[in-house]
Amino acid sequence: MYSRRLITGFSNPTVKFLRSLREKKHRRVEQRFLAEGLRLLTDARESGRLPEILVMATGRPPHPLLEALEADVVHAGGEVVEMDEEILAKVTGKDNPQAVAGVFAEFDTSLANLDRAAAPIWLVAQALRDPGNLGTMLRTGDAVGAGGLILIDDCADPFSVEAVRASMGAIFTQRVAQARWEDFVPWLREGPGQLVAASLRDAHPYRSAPYVSPCFLMVGNESRGLPEAYEDACDLRVTIPMLGRADSLNAAVAAAVLAYEALATLPR
Amino acid sequence: MYSRRLITGFSNPTVKFLRSLREKKHRRVEQRFLAEGLRLLTDARESGRLPEILVMATGRPPHPLLEALEADVVHAGGEVVEMDEEILAKVTGKDNPQAVAGVFAEFDTSLANLDRAAAPIWLVAQALRDPGNLGTMLRTGDAVGAGGLILIDDCADPFSVEAVRASMGAIFTQRVAQARWEDFVPWLREGPGQLVAASLRDAHPYRSAPYVSPCFLMVGNESRGLPEAYEDACDLRVTIPMLGRADSLNAAVAAAVLAYEALATLPR
Repeated sequence: MYSRRLITGFSNPTVKFLRSLREKKHRRVEQRFLAEGLRLLTDARESGRLPEILVMATGRPPHPLLEALEADVVHAGGEVVEMDEEILAKVTGKDNPQAVAGVFAEFDTSLANLDRAAAPIWLVAQALRDPGNLGTMLRTGDAVGAGGLILIDDCADPFSVEAVRASMGAIFTQRVAQARWEDFVPWLREGPGQLVAASLRDAHPYRSAPYVSPCFLMVGNESRGLPEAYEDACDLRVTIPMLGRADSLNAAVAAAVLAYEALATLPR
Repeated sequence: MYSRRLITGFSNPTVKFLRSLREKKHRRVEQRFLAEGLRLLTDARESGRLPEILVMATGRPPHPLLEALEADVVHAGGEVVEMDEEILAKVTGKDNPQAVAGVFAEFDTSLANLDRAAAPIWLVAQALRDPGNLGTMLRTGDAVGAGGLILIDDCADPFSVEAVRASMGAIFTQRVAQARWEDFVPWLREGPGQLVAASLRDAHPYRSAPYVSPCFLMVGNESRGLPEAYEDACDLRVTIPMLGRADSLNAAVAAAVLAYEALATLPR
């Protein structure tokens, strides 16, 4: 038998700890991140990830999935705390907070542990700054059966609340790796892998390009795109038609258009 | 000969007016919206749209495109104002404001003025709530040569700063229409037009679906998707493979995957 811990004050150390996880520097120190909402937490649970701390609003409506989640957290030795909705709103920074949130241990994001043979498609983002784009790429990766997302150079934090939210649970199903370019290229060349850049120059039309598995589809920074030297290092440069005035797509959109093309045309 | 107006105080009525345009209710009253940044304003200018008021930071670096823009605004009878960077930051709500912003008259968004024959592809969004997704759809529409974006029911405001920013200038090149579903359907059925829904049921695989021009590609609300009755009213329902745990893509991503498929396969 266990009892939930009830938190009634904003100044409670657990509240302060939870709030601190909204900032990257504290996440780095604690190696923990926040995920909000029953749907996300259920995705996590079904992917074999349980929060170390489960936070619930006192006035929440009962829900069988939440009860199952709570039972699993308790069984795994995790902590369950309850707090007023307005305190939870301070934790999550949203006016309309979900009735539940969880604290998870960050995953290992080293390249060394990626098994490139585990999936035919991998997404790669270079200097991606928008956490929403990052989360959307994870979500797309889940949809196309990709293995995960490799973040090159200085990207947004995959464990930020915004990225986790935009991933719609894919943060728990996709692998995430972080690496500098100069470490990524040697790792890639240690084994099979086609590095493909979305590019505007010297490029194959993306609809008839010779994609090969495992296919690493790379998009660049939202405003600058990929550095030329990075494009040069790719095995294949592909171009997506741009019929209008603009010369680029949103980074997550470009990744998705390429990923669905690769999914449809990759030799099985 | 004209002289720029220099604004030195936060309490200046023009500053208050500009700041008010960050809120939808004020935009509705004033029928004006804000766009920030030389790139966006240059896109506007090259699309034949000039700001009524051009706002520049006093310490901005000189730029030939800005000089050309200023000359055009003055020639068209518009107003040019200068203000300190920190005042401009208050106007745009960003810590690192662009050195220039503009006030534009909102466009007519009635369906009646859309020429469906003007383009083979039109994007349609129903109850789309995220202004970033809305702007991203405009940007994608520009890229695929779509005619514009039709917003059904209660969507985010296409003239919000976030949507304008995410559109990367496409707000000035794509047509935007707003309509209730019960007004959209009769309008659509007055002429040629295939209404296509991204759907999970009773649907063609999106890669081999019989798209016909003008093709209206519709995506639904970020969390609820399209109402079933709306899907039923479509001429074609297409499904995008979802190989992972999630059952949907980001709305702007789904629209882009469909739009690029339609672009590649629509009979010319």
